[in-house]
Amino acid sequence: MMNPNEVRDLLERLQRGDLPLEAAHEALMRRLRAQPFEDLGFARVDHQRAARTGVPEVVFGQGKTSSEIAAISRQIVGRGHTLLVTRAAPEAFEAVREVVPDASYHERARVIERRAGEIPAGAGTILVAAAGTSDLPVAEEAAITAEVMSNPVDRLYDVGVAGLHRLLAARDRLQAARVIIVVAGMEGALPSVVGGLVAAPVVAVPTSVGYGASFGGLAALLGMLNACAPGVAVVNIDNGFGAACLASVINHL
Amino acid sequence: MMNPNEVRDLLERLQRGDLPLEAAHEALMRRLRAQPFEDLGFARVDHQRAARTGVPEVVFGQGKTSSEIAAISRQIVGRGHTLLVTRAAPEAFEAVREVVPDASYHERARVIERRAGEIPAGAGTILVAAAGTSDLPVAEEAAITAEVMSNPVDRLYDVGVAGLHRLLAARDRLQAARVIIVVAGMEGALPSVVGGLVAAPVVAVPTSVGYGASFGGLAALLGMLNACAPGVAVVNIDNGFGAACLASVINHL
Amino acid sequence: MMNPNEVRDLLERLQRGDLPLEAAHEALMRRLRAQPFEDLGFARVDHQRAARTGVPEVVFGQGKTSSEIAAISRQIVGRGHTLLVTRAAPEAFEAVREVVPDASYHERARVIERRAGEIPAGAGTILVAAAGTSDLPVAEEAAITAEVMSNPVDRLYDVGVAGLHRLLAARDRLQAARVIIVVAGMEGALPSVVGGLVAAPVVAVPTSVGYGASFGGLAALLGMLNACAPGVAVVNIDNGFGAACLASVINHL
Amino acid sequence: MMNPNEVRDLLERLQRGDLPLEAAHEALMRRLRAQPFEDLGFARVDHQRAARTGVPEVVFGQGKTSSEIAAISRQIVGRGHTLLVTRAAPEAFEAVREVVPDASYHERARVIERRAGEIPAGAGTILVAAAGTSDLPVAEEAAITAEVMSNPVDRLYDVGVAGLHRLLAARDRLQAARVIIVVAGMEGALPSVVGGLVAAPVVAVPTSVGYGASFGGLAALLGMLNACAPGVAVVNIDNGFGAACLASVINHL
Amino acid sequence: MMNPNEVRDLLERLQRGDLPLEAAHEALMRRLRAQPFEDLGFARVDHQRAARTGVPEVVFGQGKTSSEIAAISRQIVGRGHTLLVTRAAPEAFEAVREVVPDASYHERARVIERRAGEIPAGAGTILVAAAGTSDLPVAEEAAITAEVMSNPVDRLYDVGVAGLHRLLAARDRLQAARVIIVVAGMEGALPSVVGGLVAAPVVAVPTSVGYGASFGGLAALLGMLNACAPGVAVVNIDNGFGAACLASVINHL
Amino acid sequence: MMNPNEVRDLLERLQRGDLPLEAAHEALMRRLRAQPFEDLGFARVDHQRAARTGVPEVVFGQGKTSSEIAAISRQIVGRGHTLLVTRAAPEAFEAVREVVPDASYHERARVIERRAGEIPAGAGTILVAAAGTSDLPVAEEAAITAEVMSNPVDRLYDVGVAGLHRLLAARDRLQAARVIIVVAGMEGALPSVVGGLVAAPVVAVPTSVGYGASFGGLAALLGMLNACAPGVAVVNIDNGFGAACLASVINHL
Amino acid sequence: MMNPNEVRDLLERLQRGDLPLEAAHEALMRRLRAQPFEDLGFARVDHQRAARTGVPEVVFGQGKTSSEIAAISRQIVGRGHTLLVTRAAPEAFEAVREVVPDASYHERARVIERRAGEIPAGAGTILVAAAGTSDLPVAEEAAITAEVMSNPVDRLYDVGVAGLHRLLAARDRLQAARVIIVVAGMEGALPSVVGGLVAAPVVAVPTSVGYGASFGGLAALLGMLNACAPGVAVVNIDNGFGAACLASVINHL
Amino acid sequence: MMNPNEVRDLLERLQRGDLPLEAAHEALMRRLRAQPFEDLGFARVDHQRAARTGVPEVVFGQGKTSSEIAAISRQIVGRGHTLLVTRAAPEAFEAVREVVPDASYHERARVIERRAGEIPAGAGTILVAAAGTSDLPVAEEAAITAEVMSNPVDRLYDVGVAGLHRLLAARDRLQAARVIIVVAGMEGALPSVVGGLVAAPVVAVPTSVGYGASFGGLAALLGMLNACAPGVAVVNIDNGFGAACLASVINHL
Repeated sequence: MMNPNEVRDLLERLQRGDLPLEAAHEALMRRLRAQPFEDLGFARVDHQRAARTGVPEVVFGQGKTSSEIAAISRQIVGRGHTLLVTRAAPEAFEAVREVVPDASYHERARVIERRAGEIPAGAGTILVAAAGTSDLPVAEEAAITAEVMSNPVDRLYDVGVAGLHRLLAARDRLQAARVIIVVAGMEGALPSVVGGLVAAPVVAVPTSVGYGASFGGLAALLGMLNACAPGVAVVNIDNGFGAACLASVINHL
Repeated sequence: MMNPNEVRDLLERLQRGDLPLEAAHEALMRRLRAQPFEDLGFARVDHQRAARTGVPEVVFGQGKTSSEIAAISRQIVGRGHTLLVTRAAPEAFEAVREVVPDASYHERARVIERRAGEIPAGAGTILVAAAGTSDLPVAEEAAITAEVMSNPVDRLYDVGVAGLHRLLAARDRLQAARVIIVVAGMEGALPSVVGGLVAAPVVAVPTSVGYGASFGGLAALLGMLNACAPGVAVVNIDNGFGAACLASVINHL
Repeated sequence: MMNPNEVRDLLERLQRGDLPLEAAHEALMRRLRAQPFEDLGFARVDHQRAARTGVPEVVFGQGKTSSEIAAISRQIVGRGHTLLVTRAAPEAFEAVREVVPDASYHERARVIERRAGEIPAGAGTILVAAAGTSDLPVAEEAAITAEVMSNPVDRLYDVGVAGLHRLLAARDRLQAARVIIVVAGMEGALPSVVGGLVAAPVVAVPTSVGYGASFGGLAALLGMLNACAPGVAVVNIDNGFGAACLASVINHL
Repeated sequence: MMNPNEVRDLLERLQRGDLPLEAAHEALMRRLRAQPFEDLGFARVDHQRAARTGVPEVVFGQGKTSSEIAAISRQIVGRGHTLLVTRAAPEAFEAVREVVPDASYHERARVIERRAGEIPAGAGTILVAAAGTSDLPVAEEAAITAEVMSNPVDRLYDVGVAGLHRLLAARDRLQAARVIIVVAGMEGALPSVVGGLVAAPVVAVPTSVGYGASFGGLAALLGMLNACAPGVAVVNIDNGFGAACLASVINHL
Repeated sequence: MMNPNEVRDLLERLQRGDLPLEAAHEALMRRLRAQPFEDLGFARVDHQRAARTGVPEVVFGQGKTSSEIAAISRQIVGRGHTLLVTRAAPEAFEAVREVVPDASYHERARVIERRAGEIPAGAGTILVAAAGTSDLPVAEEAAITAEVMSNPVDRLYDVGVAGLHRLLAARDRLQAARVIIVVAGMEGALPSVVGGLVAAPVVAVPTSVGYGASFGGLAALLGMLNACAPGVAVVNIDNGFGAACLASVINHL
Repeated sequence: MMNPNEVRDLLERLQRGDLPLEAAHEALMRRLRAQPFEDLGFARVDHQRAARTGVPEVVFGQGKTSSEIAAISRQIVGRGHTLLVTRAAPEAFEAVREVVPDASYHERARVIERRAGEIPAGAGTILVAAAGTSDLPVAEEAAITAEVMSNPVDRLYDVGVAGLHRLLAARDRLQAARVIIVVAGMEGALPSVVGGLVAAPVVAVPTSVGYGASFGGLAALLGMLNACAPGVAVVNIDNGFGAACLASVINHL
Repeated sequence: MMNPNEVRDLLERLQRGDLPLEAAHEALMRRLRAQPFEDLGFARVDHQRAARTGVPEVVFGQGKTSSEIAAISRQIVGRGHTLLVTRAAPEAFEAVREVVPDASYHERARVIERRAGEIPAGAGTILVAAAGTSDLPVAEEAAITAEVMSNPVDRLYDVGVAGLHRLLAARDRLQAARVIIVVAGMEGALPSVVGGLVAAPVVAVPTSVGYGASFGGLAALLGMLNACAPGVAVVNIDNGFGAACLASVINHL
Repeated sequence: MMNPNEVRDLLERLQRGDLPLEAAHEALMRRLRAQPFEDLGFARVDHQRAARTGVPEVVFGQGKTSSEIAAISRQIVGRGHTLLVTRAAPEAFEAVREVVPDASYHERARVIERRAGEIPAGAGTILVAAAGTSDLPVAEEAAITAEVMSNPVDRLYDVGVAGLHRLLAARDRLQAARVIIVVAGMEGALPSVVGGLVAAPVVAVPTSVGYGASFGGLAALLGMLNACAPGVAVVNIDNGFGAACLASVINHL
């Protein structure tokens, strides 16, 4: 929305004779024409998003060439922003490191990152729970994304529901978290169990881990959507990044 | 296979002149023609099945008229066998009661039964665990079927994974069972959890309980097929009868 | 966990001779046997859940008879708790009203409720956005559930993406909400658009509204899982209640 | 249909004795035998199709060898027609260039083309909108196909619904187009939004862009089929060529 | 966009002293606040849509009560617009007739309509082809919708591909149409065949006609999406209305 | 194709002066215009189909009103043809009987028929095998259809693969059949087993019999498509009529 | 079945004293033990199958190593039988040629074959129709399989339904065939059209040709199962071999 | 559960004054805090699982690197346990052999194993039946897993239902087994047939063997879930290991 003070100033200058009518008219009309979208506040959301919510601009690396990723990375860092590239192959990191020498790479999570310090800290801890060792790449994508977004992260791995004692032994850590991300493949039962143990919001991430009738994560996805514990919501299969975004937004409330 | 003694007896009578050649030939050929299937041992399996395994002849009531069910029931009882009708509506029971006055009806399980006492007792207890109250019709179909097949049954209901303490409080009963049937809808996570707590074989029954993305039990079915605990196998959606059959067979080993 | 002071007290009485050894032993062992689940803190979560998170005990009415619903309702109200019954037919309300005379019924949402005042107020406003008029039953289930859980609710209905101006005209309300629930059927595009306009967490609810290739809400579900805006998570088809639970948990952080 | 004048001419020559009866009979029968399909007007559609509709003969390159593509290309160019090869790998272009030296290759669109100038210009502009950068190969296949079919093309890329301001900023271009092709993967929401902003026909192309529950473009396809804006129709996943054909046919009306 | 003359007038009155600065400021700001969406031209699209494209406001009757439909109908007619209600049961028509006495009802198409004459005639004829008699409700929904939108309609019914001679006998009518809507269930093959016979744009409507592996129209939908003729696009299953909208938009170009 | 003798005759009459040129021209052109479809031989296929292949005109009763069915039936019988109505409810038969008094009705098969004697007998016997009693409606639709088409039919029912001895006991009947139709629901295994026992062509009909993961016949359909015996082909779910058509065509070769 | 004469002979020799009782008993029992399966006639079906039906033993090459294929091939040829290997890679042929020097390879069909002359000729011609050039590998697998099974084959390729004139031009060949195999991918419409033109049995083969919503041949498969022409049955996706088996069995009736 | 004797001992020492109150309190509290999960008996299940049920700790090799597999293998062998690695590539065996020199590798089954002798023998024989040669990798995974778990195994391969005589010839072996594992791809019919021949429990394993409409084992999975013989349960596609676990658990009852 055009600034009321700007409008008043313009009208006063016209009234005082400091501004000819044509110039005032043209200035108003130019602003009006440009306004609807530039000034609607949409773009501002983007610019201020990192500061308020802990969600920086992110580069989805899959399907992009190493040089494309490097070029975008240079731009983001050049603007003084935090850099986060997900689904990045090692070769992409080689290319990024040439233009952003102090970027770092998390191999298991396939994440490139360089923090710029502009994101305020989240209010509590985000716990990332993972059912099996094969779920770790997705869990790590979530964990590192959350850390880059200035959230303390507690990792609780290898706590699948077929070995309850390991999960139950960590109930203090579960109950201490402000937001919980649960990553699981196969039957996707972990969010139901965790959701029954805690009062915190639970973001569930199905993974494509499994074979046969897991159908690329479909079994885990359906399982999580049908979770019998309230307070659980689900993101796309293998979408550790998306889960961390939502968790960080909640943790920055 | 035709009995060797019968053959020898026939040959001896022929040799002794007690049996004319034509009569011997005809007797042998008649037996040979009849033999392949009647004597192969297949039919015997059916006739002796109840005695050995605790699986009596069963009537699947769905899609049959009340009078059809009554007619079949009269036949089975007339042969002195145990009667078991599954998926039976109350009207079917009315019809059966007229021809089998001492049959009894389990409304929730939709099962008609009358035991004839010919089935030997199973070796241990079959525990039937159910996740929610909506799963009870299927759980009861399993439980009553197992009882009709002469197995002691322990019912453990309303132990969904979102309220673990109720399930864990019953761990002694779980570990005391020789075979466990787990009935669950929605995400179908209970078999994984139970399978991790016990060493007994677990037969999982997905139910069509749920809505939306449960897709008529598909979510629970896929969840159970992907159960992360070994020693779990799955039957068709809502197939409490089938699960009890398998459990009884195992319990009669 | 057994209370340290109780243990100390018991040991002191034993030491003082006020308690015979057998009695002390038996008391300790009895507590130990009972403890693991009753005292693990799980049950407490349930008992204190309403107070901390705004999620009261809820009755899922679908598949239950009116008299079952009435019986459970009387119990809950008898314990002094807030009553919330979802998927309740008008006849169920008739039955409940006989035992809980001051319960009220929301016809479109199919919700019976009676608030007991024990749930603290949420920190901000939950906005419920719905794409079309056919989505209102689910949206109202979410809105009333959120209200019962002591959250101020802002309803923003009929803002489907094919008429963007209505949605954009409400951007102030969208940006003022602490949590947003987006309810949409058909192609399920609204969460992506809303997610791009706000920094708040977005909980998306696909509905079974549509026909043909909507396949009972599958199209909307898949659309929302693939939402191109980060910070969006999804619950089961038509699960307005579940979305409100999660939103209330977040709003009570 | 055989030409009436030809028949009359033949009969007159027979009547005049200029043509023996056998020759007349044979000529008539030969034409009759050949006629039904060659003269039915079907084939003519094919021959005149390019001139009337802007849809030239096209070569679907996928699954064909480079030499097969080159051979077909030489034939088409030899007949003086416009050449269009879709789904063409760079090696196919190498092979085509040897026989059609002035052919050109669009790498991102995977299209080989050489225009022969016989296609009349379309009546207005075809706008190709694409949601994300990963959708560009399909969008470019559509755009270049439309250009080869003599349509002015306006490209509007990277206007996904999660960043509405970019789309809205181009509303003049959207409203200026005679036909609009909308290319989107993931949740496929863009056609609904565009369809609500314009009065022009919208041809939607789902892409296989996405992962997890996008199921190879199924999510986008279902989303588009359920588009809540009227005036939208859908082609196969990744079928940029088909969308451009339809758009060109409409633009040549 | 705010009218330049209004702005100039306001500025001149301020300059002349006819308008105090506060009043001018408030007037400008009030207009600016209201403007972005009301004046963006979006709403105008809706208001002028009927006049330009032949797509009037439409009421989707399914899931609405008769009295709701009657109320909306009165409003639309009251504004002087053409009324079109699809998926309307006979009872809905009874209710509408009480408030719009000269509305008429097409039983097979389940459409209520009353034309207001404000829609200009389309440029050519829309042909509606249907494969079987069971497809007629959807075909008639399309045909009547197109007629209400001021398009001449040619109905070509019962021309399934298993009896080609009937379709081929109508090739002149097919080739005379400016736009063709093809309605078919079962295997959905008709659009491919029609698309090969004509140069006009083809809008394909799969119907839910069939049984078994037609899976509620899925087979026809997939068949049409894979149509081997270019220039074919598809709308949702049974969506005769949507097809007619698109066809009318094209016919009004 | 126009008859060469007719053409020669016409030309001779022209040559002889028995026919004026205008009349010859008009006669030729009229035939040519009429010819392409009427004379192509397509229509003749329809008219002569019953005589050659044993496939009469059939009325698919589902979705048609009783009076529609009666009207069509009167037409068919009026032309002296065999009448066959499938998927006919008892009420439809009541309506048909009023106009075709000697029609008969097969309740289980839901078939109305009246034979006109014009169909020649098939060369051998068609055996219809059915797995369970619930498959009988489909099996009877096939059997009666085959009988109406003048084929001797051998019914072999209740020979599911879980009781092999019943199937094996009928191997002589299986091997005596010229064509075999196999009807089965649930897992659809019977065609594989039958296909391994005989050398005759096997037409498999999956039925929608089953529950849960039978998914309306999908399991049986997929099972039959993957049959491990060669010489098996499949028709649509519950399509007993279609199977009998194909079997009759084969049996009339 | 054991030969009656053999039994009589044995009994007579026993009666005459030419055969001791023990020897007679042992001979009878040995035969009885061996009989049920060797003599049931099952095995004979296999041994005589080629002679009667034209279906030789076949080797499914996919998933077998070249040396495995070569070893099996040598065995079959060693027994004097016709050799047919489907889904054979060129390397497999290299291996086979070393042990069966006069085997030949059909590259497009991926078939190795060597005929032994023992299969009698089929009664008529099998026509193999294919919609597009990409369907040729499957069509050729069918054609060559049919030829190896001693059937004359007529190939009718590139007759997709979008170019009807090519199909119609071949109607004489279509109507001359005794059995027709129709191979098509994409929408799978060709069998419906062909089935409407001929009275012969039609075996439809869906192919995995296509992309996007063809879902690996699913679209074509569903299309063919829903074919609106009677007398059509379907085999598995890409199963040219299976179609030819069935066609040959029919052609050898 | 904490040992009663320990508690009594502690209390006696406190009573005797051998233990200060603080020390007794601390000791009790330390044990109580540690107890709930360590002492619940869960972990004991794991430790004693091999001894009681014949299910040792297993390593799922898929998705793990060779060095990871080798490291875990060394640990397991170091604890004196039986080693079992499934889905192990030859390279993984190379790595394991360096740290466990006497491990052995089963190439077809892709299993590495080394038995430690601590598992007691099962009570009877486990028969593994497989339909085709392509099912052997899964069948061997099951067979070797069962052997490693100390069960005698009877292998019955290549007994697909299209060649019943081979299966029937082995009926004695089938009826002698205590548990039967049935492995089949394609239509998955074998468990139904086997289940009808025996009284033993049947564990069915669908395999991904097949093509086209087998959809990666889905057809076999659905077939087995719908098996018409009672006493059959199903594990995940290709899950030979899981089937053997369950069979071994049953065989150790």
